[in-house]
Amino acid sequence: MADQVKSITKKSKDISGWYNDVVERAQLVEHGPVKGTMIWKPRGFALWEEIQKNLDVKIKDLGAKAVYFPLFIPESFLKKEKEHIKGFSPQLAVVTHAGGEKLKEPIVVRPTSETVMYEAFSRWIQSWRDLPLIINQWANVVRWEMRPYYFLRTTEFLWQEGHTAHATNEEAQVMAEMALKMYVDFYQKVLGLYGYAGRKSESEKFPGADTTLTYEILMPDGKVVQGCTSHNLGQNFSKVFKVDYQDEKGQKQLVYQTSWGLSSRSIGAMILMHGDDNGLVLPPMLAPHQVVIIPIITKSSDKEKIRNLADKAFEILEINNVRVKLDDSDQSPGWKFNQYDLEGVPIRIEIGSTEAKDNRFRIVRRDNKHSFDIHVNALGAEVSNLLKEIQIEMLDNSRDFTYKNTRQADTYSDFKKIMSSKRGFIEAFWCEAESCETAIKQETKATTRCLPLDAIEANGECIYCGKRAKFRWLFGQSY
Amino acid sequence: MADQVKSITKKSKDISGWYNDVVERAQLVEHGPVKGTMIWKPRGFALWEEIQKNLDVKIKDLGAKAVYFPLFIPESFLKKEKEHIKGFSPQLAVVTHAGGEKLKEPIVVRPTSETVMYEAFSRWIQSWRDLPLIINQWANVVRWEMRPYYFLRTTEFLWQEGHTAHATNEEAQVMAEMALKMYVDFYQKVLGLYGYAGRKSESEKFPGADTTLTYEILMPDGKVVQGCTSHNLGQNFSKVFKVDYQDEKGQKQLVYQTSWGLSSRSIGAMILMHGDDNGLVLPPMLAPHQVVIIPIITKSSDKEKIRNLADKAFEILEINNVRVKLDDSDQSPGWKFNQYDLEGVPIRIEIGSTEAKDNRFRIVRRDNKHSFDIHVNALGAEVSNLLKEIQIEMLDNSRDFTYKNTRQADTYSDFKKIMSSKRGFIEAFWCEAESCETAIKQETKATTRCLPLDAIEANGECIYCGKRAKFRWLFGQSY
Repeated sequence: MADQVKSITKKSKDISGWYNDVVERAQLVEHGPVKGTMIWKPRGFALWEEIQKNLDVKIKDLGAKAVYFPLFIPESFLKKEKEHIKGFSPQLAVVTHAGGEKLKEPIVVRPTSETVMYEAFSRWIQSWRDLPLIINQWANVVRWEMRPYYFLRTTEFLWQEGHTAHATNEEAQVMAEMALKMYVDFYQKVLGLYGYAGRKSESEKFPGADTTLTYEILMPDGKVVQGCTSHNLGQNFSKVFKVDYQDEKGQKQLVYQTSWGLSSRSIGAMILMHGDDNGLVLPPMLAPHQVVIIPIITKSSDKEKIRNLADKAFEILEINNVRVKLDDSDQSPGWKFNQYDLEGVPIRIEIGSTEAKDNRFRIVRRDNKHSFDIHVNALGAEVSNLLKEIQIEMLDNSRDFTYKNTRQADTYSDFKKIMSSKRGFIEAFWCEAESCETAIKQETKATTRCLPLDAIEANGECIYCGKRAKFRWLFGQSY
Repeated sequence: MADQVKSITKKSKDISGWYNDVVERAQLVEHGPVKGTMIWKPRGFALWEEIQKNLDVKIKDLGAKAVYFPLFIPESFLKKEKEHIKGFSPQLAVVTHAGGEKLKEPIVVRPTSETVMYEAFSRWIQSWRDLPLIINQWANVVRWEMRPYYFLRTTEFLWQEGHTAHATNEEAQVMAEMALKMYVDFYQKVLGLYGYAGRKSESEKFPGADTTLTYEILMPDGKVVQGCTSHNLGQNFSKVFKVDYQDEKGQKQLVYQTSWGLSSRSIGAMILMHGDDNGLVLPPMLAPHQVVIIPIITKSSDKEKIRNLADKAFEILEINNVRVKLDDSDQSPGWKFNQYDLEGVPIRIEIGSTEAKDNRFRIVRRDNKHSFDIHVNALGAEVSNLLKEIQIEMLDNSRDFTYKNTRQADTYSDFKKIMSSKRGFIEAFWCEAESCETAIKQETKATTRCLPLDAIEANGECIYCGKRAKFRWLFGQSY
């Protein structure tokens, strides 16, 4: 099904055009028939399977039990928490007819599961012994999307959502921070994506949360992707869903809650950041195939020798737990090079007559195109090390890029200048008044991305109104 | 969250009451707020995770690639295949409003994915080189359910659906048979459930299929669960979705297709068949915990010795790849025995003062309550063997029960007598006319379950109308 006919738009020229071309040509996904939905083809879904495999272990390490709650939520449930329904109502898909009849009460297709879960929590939690309650589900959710964009903005998306209940606000806060730390770790170690961890402003936080933590990732076009969120919900939901328990003294208490999620949009960020004009560049930890072996047979007398060496390389790498593919199909070597570049396989191993003679392999890195030779005896150890090295260097590049494109602005005129040229992250004092935030957004498209967790209090002036401002917030144009 | 207060209804007295009690008390699932939906609690979802783990490997061995298609399907897609829409339309949930607006075209929440997938197939498949195409997705689907029953009849259920396209009808038929074989293998080896594999009648087959294969499983109350289905769709869908390809001679040809699925209702069948008055009885292959170790400390002077031996047993079993849990909580041994009986853990290991003195363990089987001692040196091998033995014996019991309750009826009066007493499977000649099938159903509640794959042609007379009948079909009352 590969299609190498069309050329890919240059990334430097038109990043949206490039992104669409790469996603489609690498056969990751395509548009579904209902606006904003996405068909995950085998190569795209393989990435989500790797993400699930990696993240699920970490989620279970947090103590979470796997559950599954219904797709359908009565509309009345969503209306119970006022901020929650206000935030989500423009994006809801509503079932009004089912089983051949008009329903008495409309049903909402879950945009997130707080309401349906916490109604159950109110029954599950009775005593302090039932706390903390920590659950997670992998599910599809629906938020109607008017301007769909592969992975990053889709009507239906795939995610995991963790939900917890605790006896104290301190515990809930620690939980929300641990979940964020898990995501940061995952983004950095698996996806090779550096970003800033911080707290959302009041207007940008989750509808129904006390505070929202986030990981914000800079893209090559200077726009920013929100990589995940982790919310301290306080008692906002426990109040309306009556999630209470008897404490050790026999007193009724409301629980404190958190919720946290990471979605399939993480794949979009990974593609945008690492990809190049030849296609995807997958970080080794995520790549379904980390290495592809390509025999290059030019003299038929060398055929057997080359094939044997290719088989040997395959065996050695499999033993070393490397996810390896041997492509001895009839396609030309050139076609294969292009294909696996497009698919983003981190390491290519070529074996031709010269290599076979010397019992060595030609190694080509996908990320920086460096190539060198390795003797058969060193293959296992060298490739394992190289995969680790590539993984680290991809994160380093992402970090360097982020630092280079994080600028302080001390005047609003500087701020506007940056936003009208390179964008990126801007650190600027802000008085935390919503009016300034809204005005800045309208005039520059920049929104507050977060207050970094390590921000230091200072005696500043708001970049917009000049009033007292304690912190430099991170601004950027959101995807 | 365990609740041992209520007693469980006796299975022999009222199997529906018993089933609801066991499912709820073992904390597997509960009803969701929207009619017919189900909340999967940790212990219930753990079973589905085990099923996914086991079956996904087999599905990938069939050559299937994992994909994910949208939840939402335009209503017009479903209407393209006339039998298909006729079959599903009474069960559809319809989204009419989204994003704050009334939709121009209603959207259906997928009841199954043939239509949305095959529209994509028509673009994916161009040449004979693209065949066979074999894909699978794990997903939630919705079929409105008026008489919900945990696992067996739910509005939203979880399943996998495999979909394939082939150049010839023979290949499609082989594929449908291979998928069925995989399910039979899974049911027998993992769930310990014997059943009959066969072909559905014209009226019972999947709407849009040429033929439907099935695995029919007898339950203790004499009713029958359809365990899975595998359809040869012929060219019914490829005609309407124009799924065609150029063959090796350059001619346009329509593909032949199959689809096959196994759902969360398999868990319901497993519970109904194996469970007893004390709760679940899980087959070892499925059990999240295969063994639970319970230290019984009556003399505090023996505490350390007992604990050490319990730790040792845990280590030995973990090394032997047994999924083991050590419960050294403060609950009483009696409470623990009841709890793990309820949860259906296949083997219980008790360690008290006597056992600790002799370096041995008391082993208690959940399925038949047999108990005996094992010395520490033999523990690893013996438990591994015992788990295999239990697995086999559970299947043997299911097979014995099925055979004992499969009866030939040669007159309609015998047929009615069986249906009004023990039910079970009835083998009876049927002329294959829908009118007889319908009349039998109305008069006895028995439907044709399948024509067994190994049925032998004979010269019989239809049990209902007396006309010529070639085969004895299997009848039974469906769940």
